[in-house]
Amino acid sequence: MPRLDFPYVLHGGDYNPEQWPESVWDQDMELMKKAGVNIATLPVFGWGNIQKDEETWDFSWLDKVIEKLHANSIRVCLATATAATPPWVDQKYPDILRTDQDGIKRRHGSRHTFCPCSENFRRLSTNLTRAMADRYGHHPAVLLWHVSNEYGNPCYCDACSAEFRTWLQHRYGSLDEVNHRWNMAFWGQTYTDWSQIEAPQDKAQRNFQGLLIDYDRFQSDAILNCCKAEIEVLREITPDIPITTNMMGTFKALDYHKWAKEMDIISWDSYPARNAEPADIAFRHSLMRGLKEGEPWMLMEQTPSQQNWQAFNSLKRPGIMRLWSYQAMAHGADAIMYFQWRRSPGAQEMFHGAVVEHAAREDARVFQEVATLGKELASLGTQTVGTKVESKVALLFDWENWWAVEYSSGPSIMAKYCDIFLDYFRALFSLGITVDVVSPEADLSGYSAVIAPMLKMVKPGFAANITRFVEAGGYFLTTTFSGIVDETDRAFENGYPGPLADLLGIWVEETDALSPEEQNTVQLGGTSYPCGKLCDRIQLEGAEAIATYGEDFYAGEPALTRKGRAFYHGTWMEAEGLQAALESFLTEAGVSSTIGQSIEGVEAVKRGNLLFLLNHGKVAQLVDINGYKAVDLLTKAPISSSLELQPFGVAILQITP
Amino acid sequence: MPRLDFPYVLHGGDYNPEQWPESVWDQDMELMKKAGVNIATLPVFGWGNIQKDEETWDFSWLDKVIEKLHANSIRVCLATATAATPPWVDQKYPDILRTDQDGIKRRHGSRHTFCPCSENFRRLSTNLTRAMADRYGHHPAVLLWHVSNEYGNPCYCDACSAEFRTWLQHRYGSLDEVNHRWNMAFWGQTYTDWSQIEAPQDKAQRNFQGLLIDYDRFQSDAILNCCKAEIEVLREITPDIPITTNMMGTFKALDYHKWAKEMDIISWDSYPARNAEPADIAFRHSLMRGLKEGEPWMLMEQTPSQQNWQAFNSLKRPGIMRLWSYQAMAHGADAIMYFQWRRSPGAQEMFHGAVVEHAAREDARVFQEVATLGKELASLGTQTVGTKVESKVALLFDWENWWAVEYSSGPSIMAKYCDIFLDYFRALFSLGITVDVVSPEADLSGYSAVIAPMLKMVKPGFAANITRFVEAGGYFLTTTFSGIVDETDRAFENGYPGPLADLLGIWVEETDALSPEEQNTVQLGGTSYPCGKLCDRIQLEGAEAIATYGEDFYAGEPALTRKGRAFYHGTWMEAEGLQAALESFLTEAGVSSTIGQSIEGVEAVKRGNLLFLLNHGKVAQLVDINGYKAVDLLTKAPISSSLELQPFGVAILQITP
Amino acid sequence: MPRLDFPYVLHGGDYNPEQWPESVWDQDMELMKKAGVNIATLPVFGWGNIQKDEETWDFSWLDKVIEKLHANSIRVCLATATAATPPWVDQKYPDILRTDQDGIKRRHGSRHTFCPCSENFRRLSTNLTRAMADRYGHHPAVLLWHVSNEYGNPCYCDACSAEFRTWLQHRYGSLDEVNHRWNMAFWGQTYTDWSQIEAPQDKAQRNFQGLLIDYDRFQSDAILNCCKAEIEVLREITPDIPITTNMMGTFKALDYHKWAKEMDIISWDSYPARNAEPADIAFRHSLMRGLKEGEPWMLMEQTPSQQNWQAFNSLKRPGIMRLWSYQAMAHGADAIMYFQWRRSPGAQEMFHGAVVEHAAREDARVFQEVATLGKELASLGTQTVGTKVESKVALLFDWENWWAVEYSSGPSIMAKYCDIFLDYFRALFSLGITVDVVSPEADLSGYSAVIAPMLKMVKPGFAANITRFVEAGGYFLTTTFSGIVDETDRAFENGYPGPLADLLGIWVEETDALSPEEQNTVQLGGTSYPCGKLCDRIQLEGAEAIATYGEDFYAGEPALTRKGRAFYHGTWMEAEGLQAALESFLTEAGVSSTIGQSIEGVEAVKRGNLLFLLNHGKVAQLVDINGYKAVDLLTKAPISSSLELQPFGVAILQITP
Repeated sequence: MPRLDFPYVLHGGDYNPEQWPESVWDQDMELMKKAGVNIATLPVFGWGNIQKDEETWDFSWLDKVIEKLHANSIRVCLATATAATPPWVDQKYPDILRTDQDGIKRRHGSRHTFCPCSENFRRLSTNLTRAMADRYGHHPAVLLWHVSNEYGNPCYCDACSAEFRTWLQHRYGSLDEVNHRWNMAFWGQTYTDWSQIEAPQDKAQRNFQGLLIDYDRFQSDAILNCCKAEIEVLREITPDIPITTNMMGTFKALDYHKWAKEMDIISWDSYPARNAEPADIAFRHSLMRGLKEGEPWMLMEQTPSQQNWQAFNSLKRPGIMRLWSYQAMAHGADAIMYFQWRRSPGAQEMFHGAVVEHAAREDARVFQEVATLGKELASLGTQTVGTKVESKVALLFDWENWWAVEYSSGPSIMAKYCDIFLDYFRALFSLGITVDVVSPEADLSGYSAVIAPMLKMVKPGFAANITRFVEAGGYFLTTTFSGIVDETDRAFENGYPGPLADLLGIWVEETDALSPEEQNTVQLGGTSYPCGKLCDRIQLEGAEAIATYGEDFYAGEPALTRKGRAFYHGTWMEAEGLQAALESFLTEAGVSSTIGQSIEGVEAVKRGNLLFLLNHGKVAQLVDINGYKAVDLLTKAPISSSLELQPFGVAILQITP
Repeated sequence: MPRLDFPYVLHGGDYNPEQWPESVWDQDMELMKKAGVNIATLPVFGWGNIQKDEETWDFSWLDKVIEKLHANSIRVCLATATAATPPWVDQKYPDILRTDQDGIKRRHGSRHTFCPCSENFRRLSTNLTRAMADRYGHHPAVLLWHVSNEYGNPCYCDACSAEFRTWLQHRYGSLDEVNHRWNMAFWGQTYTDWSQIEAPQDKAQRNFQGLLIDYDRFQSDAILNCCKAEIEVLREITPDIPITTNMMGTFKALDYHKWAKEMDIISWDSYPARNAEPADIAFRHSLMRGLKEGEPWMLMEQTPSQQNWQAFNSLKRPGIMRLWSYQAMAHGADAIMYFQWRRSPGAQEMFHGAVVEHAAREDARVFQEVATLGKELASLGTQTVGTKVESKVALLFDWENWWAVEYSSGPSIMAKYCDIFLDYFRALFSLGITVDVVSPEADLSGYSAVIAPMLKMVKPGFAANITRFVEAGGYFLTTTFSGIVDETDRAFENGYPGPLADLLGIWVEETDALSPEEQNTVQLGGTSYPCGKLCDRIQLEGAEAIATYGEDFYAGEPALTRKGRAFYHGTWMEAEGLQAALESFLTEAGVSSTIGQSIEGVEAVKRGNLLFLLNHGKVAQLVDINGYKAVDLLTKAPISSSLELQPFGVAILQITP
Repeated sequence: MPRLDFPYVLHGGDYNPEQWPESVWDQDMELMKKAGVNIATLPVFGWGNIQKDEETWDFSWLDKVIEKLHANSIRVCLATATAATPPWVDQKYPDILRTDQDGIKRRHGSRHTFCPCSENFRRLSTNLTRAMADRYGHHPAVLLWHVSNEYGNPCYCDACSAEFRTWLQHRYGSLDEVNHRWNMAFWGQTYTDWSQIEAPQDKAQRNFQGLLIDYDRFQSDAILNCCKAEIEVLREITPDIPITTNMMGTFKALDYHKWAKEMDIISWDSYPARNAEPADIAFRHSLMRGLKEGEPWMLMEQTPSQQNWQAFNSLKRPGIMRLWSYQAMAHGADAIMYFQWRRSPGAQEMFHGAVVEHAAREDARVFQEVATLGKELASLGTQTVGTKVESKVALLFDWENWWAVEYSSGPSIMAKYCDIFLDYFRALFSLGITVDVVSPEADLSGYSAVIAPMLKMVKPGFAANITRFVEAGGYFLTTTFSGIVDETDRAFENGYPGPLADLLGIWVEETDALSPEEQNTVQLGGTSYPCGKLCDRIQLEGAEAIATYGEDFYAGEPALTRKGRAFYHGTWMEAEGLQAALESFLTEAGVSSTIGQSIEGVEAVKRGNLLFLLNHGKVAQLVDINGYKAVDLLTKAPISSSLELQPFGVAILQITP
């Protein structure tokens, strides 16, 4: 696989020139230079403008745009243009339009409208990919391929049902095995013929979680197959150009751990909600970075200021866009890119933030902030690119487990995977600890501590692997609602936590679900910390209690346990208790914070020999840099013992040990 | 009709052995004996495992299971196994799949998916019933029949529309009569041909409440016809085996007063919500008991601990399952049964509580509580079975009235039948009074007082009957939004309360609807009690005011009235006022509380010569037993004047007068 | 166009005799006389009773009813009876049934079920109209035509799609122009054939706001075409009888400014929500009055007391119905009419208020209030009819702008047109100022001040017109989110406020969206007033700041601006600040309150030489009548300097200057 060698930090974004007359393109070039743009992504939604019908192609406008970019030394992130089918495609081949889970066939008129099992879509999209590669694959401006755009949206049509059956036959071999794995004997729904299996359009079929999880697996695979079909064409014609597709962080429908294997480089689109916490953003960056062994990645999209699809689309305050750009860089990004270059004159995203507003004025605050950042990034040269983030702690994230947790009927609708995951991430963030977020199947040997929040689904091999990790000196921690089911959502016959029972030395006899108004406490080291949502009743079978419940009929029973280096959290603690429990766990595991301290609002991440310091708070902070000798790459100033970070301030310290 | 003569208190539950290999069945028998199980319900969802296609039958597994149960002296509550159609049935006969009210035809994959008007369903289900009866109807283990399971779910397909028209022709004779009764002249919707009448799939048709109520009647009848078709087969083959189907308390879609006529014994499934009040549970027990003149009934399903389909599935606290079991018994149950014996290994209900958890361990709290209760029940022998609950007060409940109240467009969306009904029940419960809940068509002659909350629909004959009841010395009370419409939802021409106007001596001129933020007061006996939701403006025409409004432009006007022994509550009072008003009403009617006192949290119910005392509270209570001489059947201790009930404690006193 | 010359104030309402037997009709006549009824509207929903099938007509019942009314000197507001198709029509011509936006074809059984593009509907409805006009058009009782009833409910069927394409071809000429105007290049959705354009049934197509707005325009036109088809028949047969259709105030789907052009007189149905503010009611009266240059109009429907379709249908308090009737009259109504004469015996509206309740008793409070008002109106004779309301301030309201504002994706879901509009109206109402609400295309030359809240869509010609208005000495004020898009929802290329930029002297660089929990302040004249929802960041380009922001990173920047007589409010102020800003704006414009003062709860409106004084409050108020010499038409009492208005009290002062 080719590798993207960043010549410098990439700075640019999505460019949709087809929405404007040619006269505007020259103004764009002028403004791009002023904004320090060195890369443009296009033509993401260009299909309709390239191909007017199955026989008629028109590349002339795109030729001109690419030449203009090239003439201005702006590299191209070349989209295969297959992200949205034009109306004539959907009209000519209606099988392409996908069917929602409620059984309603969608009409044309948007992006994301194709069925991944449509043969016509695969043929037409790969034809277009081939045409793009043939025409531009050897153009010197082209730096990388951008396959389609933000894949998603599963389909539930009859063609998908048929392909699903084939997928199942391949996975399970026999219908008896399917019946067994999904427990179809429940409510007497045993299949007697493959043809009885359907895409779960109907609520009826949603009573079988094994079916639902397999359908999600199948759809993630089927959509990936569309992507792979394009990649195959690109590899044939341009074997040396790296390939990506832009991902979406915690996007539930696609198992990005599988997808990442097909990518040369990871890229993703980060759209934090209004008032997002820094930890929330860092979590998603860490998840995306973990898809490909920590290799540098691209921030393919962020908004320069406003979004348009939130309820209240606030402006990014002055300095926030810069701060979040450097936060991405701290977490491994070597490209800082925007959606979008220029606000559309009309339609759905006309009020989405852009580098260039409708008035196209350079004196706009947002344009100025982008231009200033562009200069700053240019001044960094090659100093940051290519380096990797350092971490001794891994959090295990698994898409299939996510599906299993949230399809569960019982014990609580508050058992949301990303919620508890983020609670653990946030606690570690508050402790000043940098974390990798990786698959349970990742190589864990380099970590001191591994934490798996709510690992309901334990797949074959994991118990043995994690046991070896612990035996080799590693520290492991998992939580309530873990070790419940196998990869087909069948309960483990020995009860919970199933195959982890020996390692953890416990039997989870039952799990109480508390409503939002109810609470219990964890008695830990002489302090009482609030907990709630789920409370396991645990019987110790080799483990010891390190904390007990304070309330209710299970007061005094174990709440947190350990057996050697294998820890278990039997309940969902609030922030304070979680930090206390994690701090002692990590101290014992020999993990300390990046700069030996945690400062309110300040994030510190080491990337190679660079120490990124980011002040997310609204007050200036004095940061003791822990005895390092350093120079700040942004100010060029040498730093001896400490430095002051302004509100939303950033420092990139090149450290000499 | 055969009668179920309980040999002792039945203790057991739903058993679905087809979800496990045969090897597990022997473990089940061991555990059942340890749990004191003497009855098992099966094969509720066995159709698919019994019949693989229309010609292929396989009873071998069921033969084995029934023999094992028999060998272990466990009786069988034999299900007809028709509760869920297997996939091959739905695939071969798609007309069986029902259509929702939104017009969407359901797919297979669940229970409750059949259309009650499908000829194929009726044929296949009675074939299966016949096969079951032929094979097992004379097996000595079989104690009773369990037809299908939790019937419900109306259908709105074209076949139903056609059968509905026939049903209407039978009920009304002519289309003119239908037009008149439903007031189709409104908005000019007069039918000119029977074929224009459809199942009310469309919101348009929901403007005609007469149509909606008749459609509900028709569906309740049509579903009952499916049940009756099975019963007919069973009566033919096993005339001596009693028959039940498990009901669901306040389940809106089925008029259980009609259904009860077809049953030999009433059984129902009690699933109180988290933090349900004792009065709430007692109300539903009383409603179910009242379906069949107070005869003993079966608690066919309760969860040993958790549910799975609530938002937050809390554990039943230690002692609660026992307490609620005895509460059922106090209210007439002679069978205490669980859903389910063993937690499914997968699918929708895998986290629903069970006697045997996934780990199948006897040392589990829940298993131990069940086993302890089993022993206790066994020790009671025949002492409790067959007796009847004593009550001098009847609350009138009517399903058709429920539909009429809640289809009403105006005066208030808070006019919810079960809400006001439960408010009256709860007030009586707090006063320590045992109540029967019966149909307005029941024989009321044995009661001292009859209360009909919100009897919007007054059917022919009721006014005359209740007038005779009052003339014979009985006390009658009804409330706001009563006497509004006849059985086809046409308003009474003389205004409200229609045919009850003479008896009550009032004209309800208008009814004000208050929002949840608004309130009025009732001035009663020198005290001001809050009221709200609905406030009638009443003109006295023979009645006298016993309380007046305290606020608004109708301050000083009558709020509560009486004309002799006929009382009217013109507004919806909160608990305190309701208790005060009911206390004086009942005192005058000569009704006093069961033990001459009301104690916070303590329920007292007399069943034959047994006095059940149940402490629902979390603190111990000293109960004065009112001079009775008694022995506690559970402790065998003689009780002279009083006894202490522990939190969640129970006593069953055999009284010698 | 014929003009309705009111012989006196009309008083009456909707009469549906077809729901009762003939015996009730004579009672109706008696009661109508007692209630002072002089007009009855019928047969609004009579189609089904007039035409039993396509060949069979029966006018006999209607003949009798009209004769009875005529014999009792009650005039007839004659409905064309086409408001609801009878079942046989929908059964015979299923194309008539309309399709919802979700693509579901509706069934029969209600009103408003027809597709406006159905040829069959147009043929059958005009046939009926012709039959009605032929039979009754020259009957002396008939005063005016009432076409259909409360038109609304757009359709999204294939027939509509086809007619929409024709409509577009007429509007835009070429497909290229459509693609450009709607910016179909966005997401590559450029149409290559007209047949690709569909009614926006699918969410996909809702990404194109230009399409949505044009579809709304088209549907408003298509429904109006149904109305015009009936009008054409009526004009032909009865050229001298005035025509109306009853409108619904702020009903979003129909552009009443276009509709009004076809009407001889405006009529509308006023149903204020529970606890509606007086300003809210006045706003809608003013909007309806403004449809036809302030000509007198008809209050075609109001409820005498309760509604039935609200959540909580409270009674109108004693005096409120009278007060609101006179409020309508103050705002230009010459007819006070009710829905409905008599409560239906069954179906959807049986609990809607009526003059005659189910008991049909004259001693009912509501009947008495109506009868009393009837007498009072009769005593007014011709003194009030025909006069016009006086106002120096115009608020500009535009339906197409409403659609544009609320289809917008971003910046805030709180950008609701009627919300901000009502905030401005309410502030003016509180200042005691009478306001006209007119179209941006109205003749503005008679006004001193013109206010256009949130005029997002600025159509061709408006900027020039309003500039001329300002140049001629007028005062103009507009607000945040104005001047954003043209009539096809394309953003103005010069940024915001687009063509108003020169007049206002500002550039709105960006607009911050605040959540409901967030707030900023406006520093105006030394006071700090709260504002929120939207906050523009404004660059002054000729304007001056008259107020600045108090908070956030744009503290100190302009919040309110003016350039000469052209004012701009860059944020959404709460009541107090809005009143302060408007008061100084209007003072400068020379506009003062109607009676030189504003009194809490008292509304004063001048209509010709009459001064209406209405006390909406619950306490009596002393009103100084500003030196006028007057006589109160209701009491006949002369008023010298002041008068006391009781709670809910009204005075109609005939003024001698």
